[in-house]
Amino acid sequence: MAGADGSGYGLSHLPYGVVMVDGHPVPAVRIGDHALDLRACHRAGLLPGVVWAEHVDLTMLMMEGADVWAGVRAAVTDLLSEDGSQRPPDGALVPLADVAAPTMPFTVADYVDFYSSLHHATNLGRLFRPDSDPLLPNWRHLPVGYHGRAGTVVVSGTPIHRPVGQQRPPQPGAAPPVGPSERLDIELEVGFVTGGLGTPLGTAVPASAAGDHIFGIVLVNDWSARDIQAWEYQPLGPFLGKSFATSIGPWITPLAALEAARVAPPEQDPPVSDYLRVDGKWSFDLSLEVAITPAGTTTEEVISRVSFADMYWTMPQQLAHATVNGATIRAGDLFASGTVSGPERGTEGSLIELTMGGREPITIAGVERTFLQDGDTVTLRGSCEGVDGQPVVLAEVTGTILPPG
Amino acid sequence: MAGADGSGYGLSHLPYGVVMVDGHPVPAVRIGDHALDLRACHRAGLLPGVVWAEHVDLTMLMMEGADVWAGVRAAVTDLLSEDGSQRPPDGALVPLADVAAPTMPFTVADYVDFYSSLHHATNLGRLFRPDSDPLLPNWRHLPVGYHGRAGTVVVSGTPIHRPVGQQRPPQPGAAPPVGPSERLDIELEVGFVTGGLGTPLGTAVPASAAGDHIFGIVLVNDWSARDIQAWEYQPLGPFLGKSFATSIGPWITPLAALEAARVAPPEQDPPVSDYLRVDGKWSFDLSLEVAITPAGTTTEEVISRVSFADMYWTMPQQLAHATVNGATIRAGDLFASGTVSGPERGTEGSLIELTMGGREPITIAGVERTFLQDGDTVTLRGSCEGVDGQPVVLAEVTGTILPPG
Repeated sequence: MAGADGSGYGLSHLPYGVVMVDGHPVPAVRIGDHALDLRACHRAGLLPGVVWAEHVDLTMLMMEGADVWAGVRAAVTDLLSEDGSQRPPDGALVPLADVAAPTMPFTVADYVDFYSSLHHATNLGRLFRPDSDPLLPNWRHLPVGYHGRAGTVVVSGTPIHRPVGQQRPPQPGAAPPVGPSERLDIELEVGFVTGGLGTPLGTAVPASAAGDHIFGIVLVNDWSARDIQAWEYQPLGPFLGKSFATSIGPWITPLAALEAARVAPPEQDPPVSDYLRVDGKWSFDLSLEVAITPAGTTTEEVISRVSFADMYWTMPQQLAHATVNGATIRAGDLFASGTVSGPERGTEGSLIELTMGGREPITIAGVERTFLQDGDTVTLRGSCEGVDGQPVVLAEVTGTILPPG
Repeated sequence: MAGADGSGYGLSHLPYGVVMVDGHPVPAVRIGDHALDLRACHRAGLLPGVVWAEHVDLTMLMMEGADVWAGVRAAVTDLLSEDGSQRPPDGALVPLADVAAPTMPFTVADYVDFYSSLHHATNLGRLFRPDSDPLLPNWRHLPVGYHGRAGTVVVSGTPIHRPVGQQRPPQPGAAPPVGPSERLDIELEVGFVTGGLGTPLGTAVPASAAGDHIFGIVLVNDWSARDIQAWEYQPLGPFLGKSFATSIGPWITPLAALEAARVAPPEQDPPVSDYLRVDGKWSFDLSLEVAITPAGTTTEEVISRVSFADMYWTMPQQLAHATVNGATIRAGDLFASGTVSGPERGTEGSLIELTMGGREPITIAGVERTFLQDGDTVTLRGSCEGVDGQPVVLAEVTGTILPPG
C-alpha cells in the first residue's frame, strides 16, 4: 500500500491486532497508519476460513494453526499489494487516527516468563549474591522460568498503578512495612504467543516443531516491584512483585515477518540436553530500546539499547523445555524471554541493573532516577529488517505510572 | 429429594458441575446420585437469570456474582425439596450412572497455589534445610504463594502421565540426567474458585469482602515431581515440577454449603499486617484423607487423615494478599491452599512428608512405597457436616499414574 514503505508497517510486516470498528472489536492487520478490517474482508469473501474473522479477538485465528496463518498472510499481502489480484472492500482500510487505540489482541491463556539473558542473570546474581557464582548451577542447563499472572497482562497504553505490598522488615523480627513499592522497575522483554488447537496432556513439543506453534511475537514490559519481590520470593519465586501488571504491544508480529532477522544463536557451553538441541537460525537480530519520559517533563530519553540476538536460550528451547514434562500449550499462551540485557553499560533492560541496584542514579532528560516515580512514562521499542529491506517495527509498549489505586 | 440424605449430596450441599446431556455439556447440580440439569430447569422457566444456564460450563454463572448464586441456590433448593413449591421438569433429573463422568466444570483463569499449612512448611523446611530454621522469615507474615499452570488443571479421573524432565546432576559439573521423574508425589489441597465480573486493575480486595468473591471450593491434587522441582526451582520457584498436571474435583461445593463447618482460625503469632486481618469463622472443619490403590492390587488404603481446620492462612487472607498489589481477579481463578498437613505422623498431605523425604518407605495395602509407581491410583476425599446435620461430601479427586506419554 502506498505510503506504508518505510513506516515499519509495510508489506513485509503485516502484524495482527484488534481495533474497534463501529463500537465492535474486530481482528485487523496494520499497514502503515491504517488498520485493515479483516471482518470486512471476510464478509466480502476475500479471506480463507469462515469463523475466526467474526471473533472478537485473535484467539480463534491463533487456534486455526500455521497453515491458515500462512494462507491469511498470503491473502492479505495480495489485497494490499499495488499489483495484487484484488482490492480491500470499501471502508475496510481504517485510518488508525480515526479509531481508539487498539485493544488487548487476545486473551492470555497462560503466561510464562523466562530468565534467558546470560548478561541479565549474571548482573542480578552479582547484585543479589555478591559473594558467590552469579549464575546458579542450573542456569546453563535449562531455560529457568516461572508462571506469571495471565489475567493482569494488559495492552500498551494501560496506566500502571504503583503496587502496594509487604516489604522486608528493617531488622529481623520487626513487623514488615506495608506500603507503595519504592523500587518500581521495568523489564524489557520479547514474548512469543502460541497457537493451534492445543497439545495433548503428556506430550512434549519437540524443539524442531516450534515454528508450527508460534503465532508471533510482541514486546513485553514485565513491570517489577523489587522491594516486594525481595521479601516474598523465597522459596516459591516471584508473586506480587510481578503480578500487578505486565504490558504487551497491541500488534502481534508474525514469525514470518522476521525471516530476514534470523541469526544463529550463540554457542551454548556446556552442551545442552538432547531435547533442547535445535538447528537453524533461531535467534533474532532485533534492535531494542527503553525510553523514559520523566514525570514533569515532556522530554523522552533512551536509557538502554540492546540487541535481542545474543539471548542465551531461544524460543524453540523455551517451548521444548516448558512441555518436556507433558504440559500442554494452548492458543494464547504467552512466553516471555526474560529481561534482555547486554554485556556493556547502557545495554541493560532494567533499572535495577542500570543503576547498580539503585546505588548509582542515572540522569534521564535532566532528571535523576533510580527507580520509577509516579508520572514517569516508559516506552519499549524494537525493530529489525524485513525480507524486502524495509524496516519491521514491533508495536511499542508504553505505560505511565500512577499512584496506588 | 428422597434418598439423597446421608449420601453427602443432600439438600444442604448442592454442588455445581457440568454433565453431558445428549452430547452437550450443561451446568448441573448434584443431588444424591443424580444431576439436576440446570439448562432444562431454565428452559422450563424455573430459574432466575437468562444466560448462564445455556453456557457450556460454569464460568458465566460464576461471573453473575453472589446475589445470583444465592438466588439460584434458593430456587434449586425449592425445586428439590419434598415440600417445595415446584418440581423439576420431566427428564431434568439425570441418574449419574446414565451419563459420562462430569467434565471440567470451568475454565481455570489463573491458578495460584499457596503454602499455607504451618506443619507442611515446617516439615519441608526440615527436609530441605535441616541446619536452619525450617520456616523462612517471611512465612508467618504473608501467605507465600506462586502461580501455577492454569491450562493443565484437569478434572478428577484424568490419567496422569509421569512427567519427564531434567534432574540434578550426580555431581557438580556433570550433565543433568533427563528422564521420567522417580519422585512423583501428590499434594492434598483445598482450593477456592472466585466469581464476579472481575475487579479493576489497581484495586485490592479487602479480606472482609472475600465472601462476596468466593464461588465455592474443590479438592485439589497438586501432583509434584520432587526431583524435577529440586533442580529447577532456584531462584524463580517451581515450574515443570508442578506444571504437568493438577487435578480438581468435578463438583464445586458452594461456600453456603460450608456454614456449619466454619470455625475460628488458629491464632497467628506475630500479629499480621492490617490488610491481612479478618474477623469471623474463616477456617473450615473439613475432614480430609488421601487413599492409594497400589498398582497391581485392588485394595485401597488410606495413608493420611487430616483436618483442614488448622491451616495457618485463611481464604480471605489469601485473597487479600493476592490482590493487595492491585492485581485483578476474575471468574474462574483457582486459589489452592497448599498441602494440608497436620502435626502428627499420618496426617501429612504428601508422600515426601509421609516417607521422610523418601528415606522411610510406607506400606500401602501390603506394598512398599516411597513415591508413586505407574499404575498407582490416588484418591483425595473430604467431608464436613451440613447445616441440616447431614454430611457434605466434597467431590473426590482421583487419578491413576501412567508411564510418560
